[in-house]
Amino acid sequence: MKTIAVLGSTGSIGTQTLEVVRANGDLKIAALAAGRNVELLEKQIREFSPRVVAVWEEEAARKLKTAVSDMDVKIVTGMDGLIEISTLPEVEVLVTAIVGMIGIRPTVEAIKAGKDIALANKETLVTAGHIIMPLAKEHNVRILPVDSEHSAIFQSLNGEHHEQIDKLLITASGGPFRGKKRADLEKVKVEDALKHPNWAMGQKITIDSATLVNKGLEVMEAKWLFHVDLDQIEVVVQPQSVIHSMVQFVDGAVIAQLGTPDMKLPIQYALYYPDRRYLTGERLDFAKLGQITFEKPDMETFLGLPLALQASRIGGSMPTVFNAANERAVSKFLHREIGFTDIYQIIIESMEHHKVQQQPTIEDILDTEKATYEFIESRW
Amino acid sequence: MKTIAVLGSTGSIGTQTLEVVRANGDLKIAALAAGRNVELLEKQIREFSPRVVAVWEEEAARKLKTAVSDMDVKIVTGMDGLIEISTLPEVEVLVTAIVGMIGIRPTVEAIKAGKDIALANKETLVTAGHIIMPLAKEHNVRILPVDSEHSAIFQSLNGEHHEQIDKLLITASGGPFRGKKRADLEKVKVEDALKHPNWAMGQKITIDSATLVNKGLEVMEAKWLFHVDLDQIEVVVQPQSVIHSMVQFVDGAVIAQLGTPDMKLPIQYALYYPDRRYLTGERLDFAKLGQITFEKPDMETFLGLPLALQASRIGGSMPTVFNAANERAVSKFLHREIGFTDIYQIIIESMEHHKVQQQPTIEDILDTEKATYEFIESRW
Repeated sequence: MKTIAVLGSTGSIGTQTLEVVRANGDLKIAALAAGRNVELLEKQIREFSPRVVAVWEEEAARKLKTAVSDMDVKIVTGMDGLIEISTLPEVEVLVTAIVGMIGIRPTVEAIKAGKDIALANKETLVTAGHIIMPLAKEHNVRILPVDSEHSAIFQSLNGEHHEQIDKLLITASGGPFRGKKRADLEKVKVEDALKHPNWAMGQKITIDSATLVNKGLEVMEAKWLFHVDLDQIEVVVQPQSVIHSMVQFVDGAVIAQLGTPDMKLPIQYALYYPDRRYLTGERLDFAKLGQITFEKPDMETFLGLPLALQASRIGGSMPTVFNAANERAVSKFLHREIGFTDIYQIIIESMEHHKVQQQPTIEDILDTEKATYEFIESRW
Repeated sequence: MKTIAVLGSTGSIGTQTLEVVRANGDLKIAALAAGRNVELLEKQIREFSPRVVAVWEEEAARKLKTAVSDMDVKIVTGMDGLIEISTLPEVEVLVTAIVGMIGIRPTVEAIKAGKDIALANKETLVTAGHIIMPLAKEHNVRILPVDSEHSAIFQSLNGEHHEQIDKLLITASGGPFRGKKRADLEKVKVEDALKHPNWAMGQKITIDSATLVNKGLEVMEAKWLFHVDLDQIEVVVQPQSVIHSMVQFVDGAVIAQLGTPDMKLPIQYALYYPDRRYLTGERLDFAKLGQITFEKPDMETFLGLPLALQASRIGGSMPTVFNAANERAVSKFLHREIGFTDIYQIIIESMEHHKVQQQPTIEDILDTEKATYEFIESRW
């Protein structure tokens, strides 16, 4: 029996994590955390009987307390609540499926408390990889990737030696606008951007897939997660989303992980690593699939990727600016306040305006995020 | 420093093995064996200074002795010679790149002497897998596959648990006649059959690729090598020869090994397993490659595969009949004595005529081979 806590249990990764728990008999949910979806949280509490539940918003926490007053569950709130459930003595693995910078501090505290991290929160490594990875090493905990691309690399590295890696090949679907040019992107509507060709995901990450910001964030994460140089990471567009990513070794051998697009696979792999468990669902049928095609990413049209590479190369606090500017810009786009390509413009202007700080602390990172938001509000 | 002996040093795999030895500083050649190519053997002796060299033919051995009389090398002949070099005290890995049944006895003796086997001789496992695999286990030696497909599976299984294998996906180029139908095959000439689309190999194996007998032999070998049922092996036609083979696990994840077609990769992997060394040569360029396509094998036209599956399912001495009949038929085809589809006819008639013996000994296997040859000579 393995005991886990799930941050972001009502989101896409969170609910799929609970599906994996439901399908296996030997995972115990000690704690759940969510923002404000009280209705779903109540259902999850009744099904999985966590000992503690964290709700981000005070008002939602009050509603939940009333709703589950018949249950033996402790309800906690805010950042203190998140940290409390991330460091519960019985928790062995913390699934960080929460979106945004608020995932960083609970992750840091969980690592200090010796918990393995099943990492689905992108911001953690993008903004604080220089703090998280040494900390994980110091406390001898595993950072287990949940993202399909990083999980594919992680699976491909199984049994291999790190020093024999030549490069990582991160695959990309190319998003819903693959093949379009800059002028086409300017006319893009929210509805178009929310249609991902292969994966069903949350709204923010779906827009990030359309801008290729998501692929940029993945490259930034991979650099930390797998201890490689940026130059050792290549993005390969492969629209069928069948090869989830690959590793090329010094002898020229490429090891790849393929599969149908199902996030339950990387989630389950992270929870049972290095074991595999049976998982229901469709299997790849190669004859039916017919083909896998490859192309280079269009870095002139989809600026999300080159801007991410630039931010990562500059390093220090710049990746935080890239990420915060994108987060705010996507929110504005989803609220129809700006156009699709304005997302790039906001990131560019925010990065240009920022004075880089090297080796930022968590406090510095949170300050940089706030300053980026303020800069954007003052200009847009 | 690892000390190796190479059976079949003048053949395609043998010469490429020596290229790998040449490129690495820490492999020592203790012994070489070849059939009759004295000229090349002499060059190899002068370059690699083996202590003992086996030559199959007496006449060739005499010529070689004269040629290298200035060198400190012992020349041995016949089966005794092969066994002598396979069991030399200093040999750690025996590369069995010899073609045909004569590879089996030296392999058995090498296993008994505790040598790891880098296996490129197909007949060993096809005809005697039921003897070889338990013997290797008993003597705690590794059977390291050198064939590109089996090496790809071996690489894909690295770090994984055997009981979590769902199925093996052996890829096939489909050979030079992919897409053709039975009537087309009847008109095939030797020159056409020797044109393999992707791999440069010996004549026998090139014809076997065209008939799909080679893929059948690989399935038979894989069954023994990876301890799976025949039903757990699927052949996927993938004409680009980029994915060298794959493994599907119980969770639906497929791990694959990809690369340019270069036999030096599986050879080097076998010699250094589980390490990888730098290897010169072309790397995969996915954007340039453009696509990988998949289709089902045409089992109605290319009978090599279904006949192999049938022989393997019957088991006992039947795989020996399949292999021996094919060997003789291919020889007749290469000598223009029979047509291309007569290869299938000879295999079918030989299998029909054979009375199966279960759990054959090495002696029984060699008798079955002889009887199969005699049957074919009496009929064709």
